[in-house]
Amino acid sequence: MSRIKSVKGFRDFYPHECAVRNHVFGTWRQAARRCGFVEYEVPMVESTDLYRRKSGDEITRQLFCFEDKRGRELSLRPEITPSLARMAAARQRDFRKPLKWFEIGNCFRYEEPQRGRTREFYQFNADILGETDVAADAELIALAIATMVDLGFPDDAWTVRLSDRRLWDGFLRAQGVDAGHTAAFLQVIDKLERVPAEVSEPQLQALGTSLEAVREFMGRGESLLDASDDSAADLARLRQLLDARGLWKHVTLDAGIVRGLAYYTGVVFEVFDLVHGMRAVAGGGRYDGLCALVSDGAVDLPAAGFAMGDVVITDLIQATPAANARLTAHLATALALDAWVVIADEARRGAALALVETLRNAGLATDYSLVAAKVGRQFQSAEHAQARAAVVVGGEYPSITVKDLGRRSQQETTPENLVATVRAVLASTDGFHVAGG
Amino acid sequence: MSRIKSVKGFRDFYPHECAVRNHVFGTWRQAARRCGFVEYEVPMVESTDLYRRKSGDEITRQLFCFEDKRGRELSLRPEITPSLARMAAARQRDFRKPLKWFEIGNCFRYEEPQRGRTREFYQFNADILGETDVAADAELIALAIATMVDLGFPDDAWTVRLSDRRLWDGFLRAQGVDAGHTAAFLQVIDKLERVPAEVSEPQLQALGTSLEAVREFMGRGESLLDASDDSAADLARLRQLLDARGLWKHVTLDAGIVRGLAYYTGVVFEVFDLVHGMRAVAGGGRYDGLCALVSDGAVDLPAAGFAMGDVVITDLIQATPAANARLTAHLATALALDAWVVIADEARRGAALALVETLRNAGLATDYSLVAAKVGRQFQSAEHAQARAAVVVGGEYPSITVKDLGRRSQQETTPENLVATVRAVLASTDGFHVAGG
Repeated sequence: MSRIKSVKGFRDFYPHECAVRNHVFGTWRQAARRCGFVEYEVPMVESTDLYRRKSGDEITRQLFCFEDKRGRELSLRPEITPSLARMAAARQRDFRKPLKWFEIGNCFRYEEPQRGRTREFYQFNADILGETDVAADAELIALAIATMVDLGFPDDAWTVRLSDRRLWDGFLRAQGVDAGHTAAFLQVIDKLERVPAEVSEPQLQALGTSLEAVREFMGRGESLLDASDDSAADLARLRQLLDARGLWKHVTLDAGIVRGLAYYTGVVFEVFDLVHGMRAVAGGGRYDGLCALVSDGAVDLPAAGFAMGDVVITDLIQATPAANARLTAHLATALALDAWVVIADEARRGAALALVETLRNAGLATDYSLVAAKVGRQFQSAEHAQARAAVVVGGEYPSITVKDLGRRSQQETTPENLVATVRAVLASTDGFHVAGG
Repeated sequence: MSRIKSVKGFRDFYPHECAVRNHVFGTWRQAARRCGFVEYEVPMVESTDLYRRKSGDEITRQLFCFEDKRGRELSLRPEITPSLARMAAARQRDFRKPLKWFEIGNCFRYEEPQRGRTREFYQFNADILGETDVAADAELIALAIATMVDLGFPDDAWTVRLSDRRLWDGFLRAQGVDAGHTAAFLQVIDKLERVPAEVSEPQLQALGTSLEAVREFMGRGESLLDASDDSAADLARLRQLLDARGLWKHVTLDAGIVRGLAYYTGVVFEVFDLVHGMRAVAGGGRYDGLCALVSDGAVDLPAAGFAMGDVVITDLIQATPAANARLTAHLATALALDAWVVIADEARRGAALALVETLRNAGLATDYSLVAAKVGRQFQSAEHAQARAAVVVGGEYPSITVKDLGRRSQQETTPENLVATVRAVLASTDGFHVAGG
């Protein structure tokens, strides 16, 4: 037998990596709750059919599929939105509209692992269902912005690139392009930034337009909002709603953003890194037809949402000093202890264990050496565990020494006053660990 | 096309169910952190080989297996311990011993869904690696007890049933049973409570002993600890260590507990419900050989741990008034809002949106009606969302009315003083929601 390894593209989270992950999760969760979203979760496994309904999609080719013992085709979830549409359609009558729901969980895509892409990754999903008005899109963009601000990214390090797939309808009509070619046209636009002009130009010509015309249209910037069609009117109101909140400064109108997923129907946007490799760190938009699709027409619920993955954003946090400082502050509390009980006399182990129990019952993160060890080694363990106070139990018991391991000061106390003494030491530095951990 | 349904045995977590889940997760996490454990996570997918190494196990027959595009056999994780052993063996030199690690995540077993069993379920796993001393087992039992106390279960509703597989070594020697039959014998003991005597008796006789002798041995209770073998000495010291912390009252010595998993080598225990159907709600023990097994002998790390699933414990919480009261208190904050901004005059929507942004930036969970609605309906929305304060923005703006929706009192304020006014309203009731949500 050989040594067993982890599967390529799947991740082990050792305590440090897990604390980094939890910082991102906690920031996502708090931003969503503050903006009035409530948390839900969908199953890790769904019928493959749920994803096939969006056939032609790149995601369908990346499914981890398997059959259960009765031959039913199942898949690990590659994204959350189809499950959300299924759940919302199944019980939409039970909820007051609009639904403002968020989710944090892992997804699976069978693609070649590379920088920023793993086969298992976490996503933050936020969606609003049951509201057609562009105010819902504004609310989602506001949440995406709140997330970036909360994570500690400076304003000039990122922007929200905003567009509407319908903006192109007028362009295509003016160019005389057949409406049946819209989907193919949007695929070309989606890849325009990443594909050489020699490839895009003939594709656009085959559809009845040209790269020059496309570039001219995209170059119009915010003047696109002066047009008289629905999408221009929606985007103009979106600007107004975000401007009222002081958030338009984070937004860049960019008609070239159309997003890859097939189910988007209107406003689309992505959060885009401007400093480290110019990558999209989040993306979403309106998908008004999806609930009807998964419910076979039974439930027609307008919807919009976005997702942010953990891999790219975590890379960016660690590469951005202001964001990394917040992460570091989180790690300093998440992996630390309030107190370490040092047993200086093994005859007092029983008394020391009772004190460990007392400290823990008072809500203080407390640890101790499970077996007899030299006092110096116990203090090493305390420092290694980032304990802020040491509680020394020795021959003088019931007199106990409490040491502030940061300030190197100490005081005597009794079992009855121990919790209050340790709390005073912690308060004199920077608060408790458990509450924030 | 038909309407798509969820897969049998997999669970949808709507916001209420998700908040219940998060209460259990939060209680697990806080208990573990208080006891000095740090969080880790393992991949959702592993090589099927990792689970096959414990062949003969019931779990191996319940795997959700599939092949990747290169024909490698993969499985959804049915439990966490084998992955933990793999991770610990791979990087054990990087960590100071003992490792005290915990994990909260989902597992998958292909069994027939029934009460208390689903195909996807969450588990809390806590383990100590790198310590052979029974003090590690005591520490794990103390954490299991802390979890039950924190969840709000009264002392008389549950007990920790404690044993050691090695206790039976002396019995089997005295009965003249061949040592090669130990595993088969423990299988019979594991099922003794659930299988009729007519089935167990001939099995025990075939192994060279009898049901009567087994029952007599089990009936000795704590006098088993007076024996001179290693397991009796370990259990006696375990009793001493837990007694020093005032925790032995939660423990019942029961030689009949041997746990089903093949990899246990010493102390085993389970948390056992005494009120609602007498079910095991958590179980674990010592598994000193597993790291060597998954690392092909490269790393020999002693280990012990336990797991608690979410399904049975959540049933019990809801059936136990004291535990359900804690759950209810959590739900009251987790699903509620601090403030709802009522837009009494649509001309003031822009100003109201700016105030929404101000409140959220101050950390207050705040929502509002995305589209124009009658004031009465907006107040209904506020109550439905369990908002504690209503911020009314109307024709009198910049004068703003803040209503305490619990006490039905109200006061006037200005945009500059809004955050302080809302905070005062919240403080006069019972604190902020976001911090606890």
